[in-house]
Amino acid sequence: MPDASLLEVFPAPTDSPFVIEHTSEEFTSVCPKTGHPDFGDVTLRYQPKAASAGGACVELKSLKLYYQSFRNEGIFYEAVTNQIHDDLAALMKPEWIQIRTDWKGRGGIRSTILAQSGDVPEEWRRG
Amino acid sequence: MPDASLLEVFPAPTDSPFVIEHTSEEFTSVCPKTGHPDFGDVTLRYQPKAASAGGACVELKSLKLYYQSFRNEGIFYEAVTNQIHDDLAALMKPEWIQIRTDWKGRGGIRSTILAQSGDVPEEWRRG
Amino acid sequence: MPDASLLEVFPAPTDSPFVIEHTSEEFTSVCPKTGHPDFGDVTLRYQPKAASAGGACVELKSLKLYYQSFRNEGIFYEAVTNQIHDDLAALMKPEWIQIRTDWKGRGGIRSTILAQSGDVPEEWRRG
Amino acid sequence: MPDASLLEVFPAPTDSPFVIEHTSEEFTSVCPKTGHPDFGDVTLRYQPKAASAGGACVELKSLKLYYQSFRNEGIFYEAVTNQIHDDLAALMKPEWIQIRTDWKGRGGIRSTILAQSGDVPEEWRRG
Amino acid sequence: MPDASLLEVFPAPTDSPFVIEHTSEEFTSVCPKTGHPDFGDVTLRYQPKAASAGGACVELKSLKLYYQSFRNEGIFYEAVTNQIHDDLAALMKPEWIQIRTDWKGRGGIRSTILAQSGDVPEEWRRG
Amino acid sequence: MPDASLLEVFPAPTDSPFVIEHTSEEFTSVCPKTGHPDFGDVTLRYQPKAASAGGACVELKSLKLYYQSFRNEGIFYEAVTNQIHDDLAALMKPEWIQIRTDWKGRGGIRSTILAQSGDVPEEWRRG
Amino acid sequence: MPDASLLEVFPAPTDSPFVIEHTSEEFTSVCPKTGHPDFGDVTLRYQPKAASAGGACVELKSLKLYYQSFRNEGIFYEAVTNQIHDDLAALMKPEWIQIRTDWKGRGGIRSTILAQSGDVPEEWRRG
Amino acid sequence: MPDASLLEVFPAPTDSPFVIEHTSEEFTSVCPKTGHPDFGDVTLRYQPKAASAGGACVELKSLKLYYQSFRNEGIFYEAVTNQIHDDLAALMKPEWIQIRTDWKGRGGIRSTILAQSGDVPEEWRRG
Amino acid sequence: MPDASLLEVFPAPTDSPFVIEHTSEEFTSVCPKTGHPDFGDVTLRYQPKAASAGGACVELKSLKLYYQSFRNEGIFYEAVTNQIHDDLAALMKPEWIQIRTDWKGRGGIRSTILAQSGDVPEEWRRG
Amino acid sequence: MPDASLLEVFPAPTDSPFVIEHTSEEFTSVCPKTGHPDFGDVTLRYQPKAASAGGACVELKSLKLYYQSFRNEGIFYEAVTNQIHDDLAALMKPEWIQIRTDWKGRGGIRSTILAQSGDVPEEWRRG
Repeated sequence: MPDASLLEVFPAPTDSPFVIEHTSEEFTSVCPKTGHPDFGDVTLRYQPKAASAGGACVELKSLKLYYQSFRNEGIFYEAVTNQIHDDLAALMKPEWIQIRTDWKGRGGIRSTILAQSGDVPEEWRRG
Repeated sequence: MPDASLLEVFPAPTDSPFVIEHTSEEFTSVCPKTGHPDFGDVTLRYQPKAASAGGACVELKSLKLYYQSFRNEGIFYEAVTNQIHDDLAALMKPEWIQIRTDWKGRGGIRSTILAQSGDVPEEWRRG
Repeated sequence: MPDASLLEVFPAPTDSPFVIEHTSEEFTSVCPKTGHPDFGDVTLRYQPKAASAGGACVELKSLKLYYQSFRNEGIFYEAVTNQIHDDLAALMKPEWIQIRTDWKGRGGIRSTILAQSGDVPEEWRRG
Repeated sequence: MPDASLLEVFPAPTDSPFVIEHTSEEFTSVCPKTGHPDFGDVTLRYQPKAASAGGACVELKSLKLYYQSFRNEGIFYEAVTNQIHDDLAALMKPEWIQIRTDWKGRGGIRSTILAQSGDVPEEWRRG
Repeated sequence: MPDASLLEVFPAPTDSPFVIEHTSEEFTSVCPKTGHPDFGDVTLRYQPKAASAGGACVELKSLKLYYQSFRNEGIFYEAVTNQIHDDLAALMKPEWIQIRTDWKGRGGIRSTILAQSGDVPEEWRRG
Repeated sequence: MPDASLLEVFPAPTDSPFVIEHTSEEFTSVCPKTGHPDFGDVTLRYQPKAASAGGACVELKSLKLYYQSFRNEGIFYEAVTNQIHDDLAALMKPEWIQIRTDWKGRGGIRSTILAQSGDVPEEWRRG
Repeated sequence: MPDASLLEVFPAPTDSPFVIEHTSEEFTSVCPKTGHPDFGDVTLRYQPKAASAGGACVELKSLKLYYQSFRNEGIFYEAVTNQIHDDLAALMKPEWIQIRTDWKGRGGIRSTILAQSGDVPEEWRRG
Repeated sequence: MPDASLLEVFPAPTDSPFVIEHTSEEFTSVCPKTGHPDFGDVTLRYQPKAASAGGACVELKSLKLYYQSFRNEGIFYEAVTNQIHDDLAALMKPEWIQIRTDWKGRGGIRSTILAQSGDVPEEWRRG
Repeated sequence: MPDASLLEVFPAPTDSPFVIEHTSEEFTSVCPKTGHPDFGDVTLRYQPKAASAGGACVELKSLKLYYQSFRNEGIFYEAVTNQIHDDLAALMKPEWIQIRTDWKGRGGIRSTILAQSGDVPEEWRRG
Repeated sequence: MPDASLLEVFPAPTDSPFVIEHTSEEFTSVCPKTGHPDFGDVTLRYQPKAASAGGACVELKSLKLYYQSFRNEGIFYEAVTNQIHDDLAALMKPEWIQIRTDWKGRGGIRSTILAQSGDVPEEWRRG
């Protein structure tokens, strides 16, 4: 099941503001209603806090393992998106953070969910 | 015939604002004038109310069944679009909601209908 | 010859504002100068008045028959575009309306004509 | 109505074999069943007889006028294709000739008809 | 040689503002420096004056003949573009007018010239 | 008018067989029926005779000037194609030669003409 | 070596403001560090001064010869771009001018340099 | 290991402001966590200081060698991006500078990092 | 001028047959007729002789320098292609070899030359 | 340095013939002539021997480590390709095997090397 304890961070390497984007094209969870697997892309975008303010970056392999922990979890798209947002926001306390999930067709319906918090710059607000 | 009682909701998973988009590429109804089938895409986009305010999300399988209930209904494009809008707005009482339908050619004419209500953010106003 | 009496309407299904777009890719009329046929696409876009204000929508099959009534009419591109605009504006008295025609090459020249009236939202003003 | 007398020829310019292809993207006739217009592309491909054997080529403007003479004719796709084939074959008596028609969607169905006669080279036999 | 007397107009069909665009892909003139032919596309875009104010539209066949009158003229790209602009502006006295020419490579250099006058709406100012 | 005396050759540089292809995208002549200009692409493909057998290659600038000599000639597509074929075949006496012309739309009809002689390899026979 | 004396001008044909763009895809110079040739595209964009103010346009063939004069010059990308900018700005004294160079890969690195002066309209400021 | 001493500069060729962009598609370093190689694109964009103010440009071959010095270094994406930014900013003291790295998939996750400083013009702020 | 002595070889690494293809997109020479530069792509494809039979491969940097030696040579397309073919065939004595050159437009004409010798496999015979 | 002992196999799962393709887009080695890194794609395609005949398949992670062992090796493209071919052919003794390497531009020249052995089916012979 989703396990935020798998996530690891390393210190932000600088006090200068910069932006990080990680896109996973191999996310899968299970539909709580039908029991069938769901497949989607997950995009994480954030600006870490400054190094001198204790800024942190999520380590990439730990992020992959965290994503993999949803594999057999029965969970709605909306909940997946907000849980990833909340876990990573709590972990890194970034200046701003954005999670966008794009789900493959299920019963002929494609879905996209967008959750964000902090002061997201205008050019990224649509996800 | 169109049956809004098929629709089910689950509670919004968070108080944070986020956006949900579901696109169905397998919608069909019947032209009330000619009796021939119509085929189209239906896009639903909305921001649920906050969880603490009783916010709700439409469940995806129930949405599919609801869409399927139009299959043998004789109904104009314009009415389909507004009925879906009205049924889902009444069901979820979202912050804002948008329905866009794109219909395949009929007699050499392609059609698009766009209905929306609430405070739709500027970047999505064109549907 | 162009026959606006072929056009039929049905009542707008709602008081909420919404937008309707119909694109015909099979329009043909005749050049009044050379007598040769012209071929083009015709796009109609409009927002009907509210249902409670007597709003009306053009019925799609009647629109097709109306377009077909230009088939053997000798008429310039500019006049076609404005006549369709004027006939449909008089018929439906919509909040706003826009007609765009895109004509196939004639003597090596392709043409586009754009007529509109009412309060066309900024995002559609280019046709 | 279709009028083969509109067709004109000019003498083939050479005894050497060569191939001519004319593609019209502005063909229209009328469905004899529904009375609605049909729209399609017509491709003519042929090798004229040698000049010394009285070979002839169809003149392009006369071909356009001939195609236009189908404009208000109620006629099936299959009959259009064969009539064009037969009229042009009778007119030019070419080494070989091929007519291919590609029709726009009607009731969601697109159609292609291929008629040919004479010794069509292998590389063009599929139309 | 360029002959503006070939141009004909017909009265604008309406008092409502509308936009007309004609694109010729078969323009040719001659380089005054080398004597070799130049080839390009010419796009005319304008809004005629209102009908009640004596508004006029250029007739399409006359426009083709006017363009053909440059065929053997030795003239620079810049002068072609401005002469077409000036001739059509003088002829129609439109609300605004824009001429864009796109020339095929000459000595490995492709060129585009853009001339306009009147109150060109912002969305068309780049040509 | 078409002037084969403009064509110049230079000796084939080798006894080894090789293939040469020149494609002009700036060919124009005049329709003998309507007096309007025609525009097309002309592709020449050939294998020169061996150098020791007096093989010759057409010089590129002279080919351009030869093509330009058709600029104001009233001549059918079919005749243009065969005349270019015959002039170049007589000039160079190549092992094989192929001329393909592709003409822009005229009255809604696009045309392609293909003339060839000698032992054209199978892989190029369709032009 | 680069020779601005090759450049020729002709008087601007009008007092109306207009924009000229010339793109060369056949520029080559030599790397001053390695001695190897560099290859790139050069785009010139400018608005000439008004004719009555002595406005001038660069003649296209002279521009080609000027570009060719860099062929065997050892010179950095940055210097090429600024020298072309400065030579053409001094020659024409235009209202505004912009030079953009796009260089093919060298050691796995592609480069773009952008130099401009005068009042470049906002829509062209990115080159 | 990363060696900023490999970097060389040459004086900016002008006092006029201009923009330089170098894109390397052949960057590789090593993941400090797994020991596996990482592959990415590195884009450098900057405006040098004016020549009279001691402005400097990085020499292209030295930039390639500097990038190659990361080849066997174990270093996170975030640190690579900021180190390149910091080394080049310290070397050239440009008006503004921007480094964008785009990394190939690792464990099914693609990443992009963006670091910038100085007064980056609005049109380039998204990297 | 073209200098085959710049070419270096290294021994073929195996007795097994294999195929090598090198494509240069930065070839330039000079037209012997006009003195203007020509630009083209050069593709070399060959199968070396077996290592035990003294098979040889052309070294890539030497090939680049050899190509660069044509930079200021006045030479026809046909001669360039055959000289490269002959120089490389003499140098490596491969099982088979093929040279294809694709030249940018000159006077509106694009050209391709194909020279080959030895037993070229059927799948590569068109170049 | 290249280390074939890193490669591991597992038994082919069936007696039926089938085809396996692995494409690596992250291959890098070093040019033995210049010392600069080379980057390329490596495609392995093969048909294993039947299970009952002792057929074997290469294990994917071991293949990745084997490819990584070339990272700091100075070796020509031709030798890389044949060594990978020979190592994998010796390891698996497949029915047939094919290695294709596609190298990024070096000095403006892109290269492709193709080595194969066994009875490669006709449809894959071009690599």
